[in-house]
Amino acid sequence: MKWAAGRILAAFAVVWLIAVAPLAAAQDPLPSWNTGTSKQAIVAFVGRVTKTGTPDFVPVPQRIATFDNDGTLWIEQPVYAQYAFAIDRVKLLAASHPEWKNKEPYASLIDGNVESALAGGEDSLLQVLASTHAGMTTEAFERIAREWVTTKRDARFKRPYSTLVYQPMLELLNYLRANGFKTFIVSGGGVEFMRAYAEEAYGIPPEQVIGSSGRLKYQMRGDVPELLKLPAVDVVNDRDGKVVSIQKIIGRRPIAAFGNSDGDLQMLEWTAAGKGARLALLVHHDDATREWAYDRGSHIGGLDKALDAAIARKWVVVSMKNDWNTILPKR
Amino acid sequence: MKWAAGRILAAFAVVWLIAVAPLAAAQDPLPSWNTGTSKQAIVAFVGRVTKTGTPDFVPVPQRIATFDNDGTLWIEQPVYAQYAFAIDRVKLLAASHPEWKNKEPYASLIDGNVESALAGGEDSLLQVLASTHAGMTTEAFERIAREWVTTKRDARFKRPYSTLVYQPMLELLNYLRANGFKTFIVSGGGVEFMRAYAEEAYGIPPEQVIGSSGRLKYQMRGDVPELLKLPAVDVVNDRDGKVVSIQKIIGRRPIAAFGNSDGDLQMLEWTAAGKGARLALLVHHDDATREWAYDRGSHIGGLDKALDAAIARKWVVVSMKNDWNTILPKR
Repeated sequence: MKWAAGRILAAFAVVWLIAVAPLAAAQDPLPSWNTGTSKQAIVAFVGRVTKTGTPDFVPVPQRIATFDNDGTLWIEQPVYAQYAFAIDRVKLLAASHPEWKNKEPYASLIDGNVESALAGGEDSLLQVLASTHAGMTTEAFERIAREWVTTKRDARFKRPYSTLVYQPMLELLNYLRANGFKTFIVSGGGVEFMRAYAEEAYGIPPEQVIGSSGRLKYQMRGDVPELLKLPAVDVVNDRDGKVVSIQKIIGRRPIAAFGNSDGDLQMLEWTAAGKGARLALLVHHDDATREWAYDRGSHIGGLDKALDAAIARKWVVVSMKNDWNTILPKR
Repeated sequence: MKWAAGRILAAFAVVWLIAVAPLAAAQDPLPSWNTGTSKQAIVAFVGRVTKTGTPDFVPVPQRIATFDNDGTLWIEQPVYAQYAFAIDRVKLLAASHPEWKNKEPYASLIDGNVESALAGGEDSLLQVLASTHAGMTTEAFERIAREWVTTKRDARFKRPYSTLVYQPMLELLNYLRANGFKTFIVSGGGVEFMRAYAEEAYGIPPEQVIGSSGRLKYQMRGDVPELLKLPAVDVVNDRDGKVVSIQKIIGRRPIAAFGNSDGDLQMLEWTAAGKGARLALLVHHDDATREWAYDRGSHIGGLDKALDAAIARKWVVVSMKNDWNTILPKR
C-alpha cells in the first residue's frame, strides 16, 4: 500500500509538471531572444515538427538536434577555452619536460607568447592538446579538467569558463528538450574536456557529447583496470568529420543543427538536406560591445563559406547584437 | 483552452502509466526467468541501486547498462547473422566481381563452403564484411540490411533473423528501462547492421547502438550531400575495444554489463571494477535442445577466460537451460 501511495503521489507530481507548470512558464520559452525573424523561425519550426497529423510532424525519437560548442554555446574568443587550459597545463608540466624549452610551440607558450605559438597552425595546436591531455587516466583527466573549467576565470569577463555560456542558447536547449528533442553537442573540442562541464552547464549528459578525441589504452594496474590517455590524436571532429561522427555515433540525421563557423558548414548542409522541415542556424558574432565581433578571416571560428551558404539557402543567421537581449546568464 | 485540455488529458494518461499499469504488471517483470540465483541477483541489484537514501543508490543519469549483442541478445550460431548477410551479399555481387572466383574466401563462399571460408580467420572475415558492406551510401545500406534481417529466415528456427532474439533478455531490457536505466548495445557487430533492426527488436534507438564500423566519406552528388561507405575497417569494437568505445561514446562507466563470450571480458571487468553496486552477467549457452550448447573452444562466441573470471569474481552466470523457461518470443 505504501508503494502504491508513493506511486500515486509521484503521479500527481507529474500531473503538476505536465499540466500546471507549463501554463505558467510557457508564455515565452525564449525570453532572452528579441522578437524578430530568427526567433520566429525557431518557434515556427518547433511548431511544425511537433504538430501531430501534419506532413511535417516528426516522431519524438527522430527529433535530433546537434549543436557546435565553441562560439555556438559558449565564448571561443580570444582563444578557445580548451587551448587556454592546455597553455596552463604546459606551464604546469614544463618542469618535468625540459625539452619543451627549445621546442615550439611549447617555448612560446612557456614565455606567455600565445600569438607566436598559434602561428604554427592547427597541427601544432593539436600537438599541444595531445601532449598536455595525455599520460594520465581518463578519470584523472576528468577531475583536472572539471577543476580548471569551473574555477579558472577568463581575462575579459572575469568569470569561470564554465559560466561563459550563452543564455539564449541555454533557453533554446531547454525549449527543444521540452518539445521532445534530444540535444547533442557535435564539436571540434575534445570530448572529455567538454564532458567535464557539459552536464552541469547545458544539461547535456556525457553520452550526448561528441567531440575530437585522442587514443586510449585499456590496461591493468595490478588488479584494477584503467584507461590511459595516449598522446595521439584519434578523431578530429570538424567539417566533414562532424557529419561522419553524427552517422557513426548518433546514426540518424539531425532535423536541427546549430553552428557559428565554417567548421559547421557540412553539419548544417547535411541536416538541411534531409526530407521534411529542417532548421539550420548560424550564430553570427557581431557584437563587439557585449561579446566579440568576427566572421570572415578570424583566426578562430572563421565564418565565410558557411555565411555565404546560409544567405543563399535561407538558413537562420542569428545576430547576437539584434536578436539577443542577454548574452551571459546572471551570476 | 484546447491546449490546456490536451495537456491535462496527457497528464491523466501519465497517471495511468505511472500509478495503475505497474500495479497490474509489476507482479513479475521477468516472467521468462525461472526463480533462482540469477534472477534473484538481477532483482536484488536493481533494488539496491534504485533505493533512495541508501549508499548504493545511483541517480538515473548514471544508470548505464551495456549489452553485447551476438549470443547475448540474439542467436549467434551456427554463424553470426551478419556473416550470413555478407555471404548472401557475396553471392549477389559475384557477377560484378569476377575476380572473386579465384580469391579466398570469396570463392569458397560462392561455392557455399562456409567452413572453408571461415578457416581464413578473423582478418578474412573482416575483409568480406568490409567489401560487401561498402560502395553505397549509408542510407542505401540501411534499406538493404533492414530488408534482409527482417525477412531472411535462418535454417534451424525458420524465423526471420530479427526475431531470433531472447525473450528473457527483452524482459530484462524493459525491466531495466522501467527502473531508469539507459540501455546500450556494445557489440563487435557492425553498427549500421545492428541499427537496421535494434530499435524495433529491442527498443534501443540508433544512438545507443555501439559497434564495429567502416570508414565513411562525406561527398556531394550534385547538390546533394551523401555519406559513402568505404571498404575499409575503422573501429573493431571487441575486447579492449569495447571499453575504449564505452569511454569514447558513452563517457561514463556502466553499472551493469551483459555478455556471453571472451570478447566481453574487459567490458564486464571494467564495469565490475567501479565503485558501488555493480552487475556483471554472462549468458551461458548450455541448452543444445532449445538453442545451442557451446563455451570453451567454440569457433564463435568462445567462452573460456571470461567464464573463469565470472566464477572467480562471483559474476552472474545465466544457465539458459535452467534459468530461462522461454528462449524466443512467441510468434
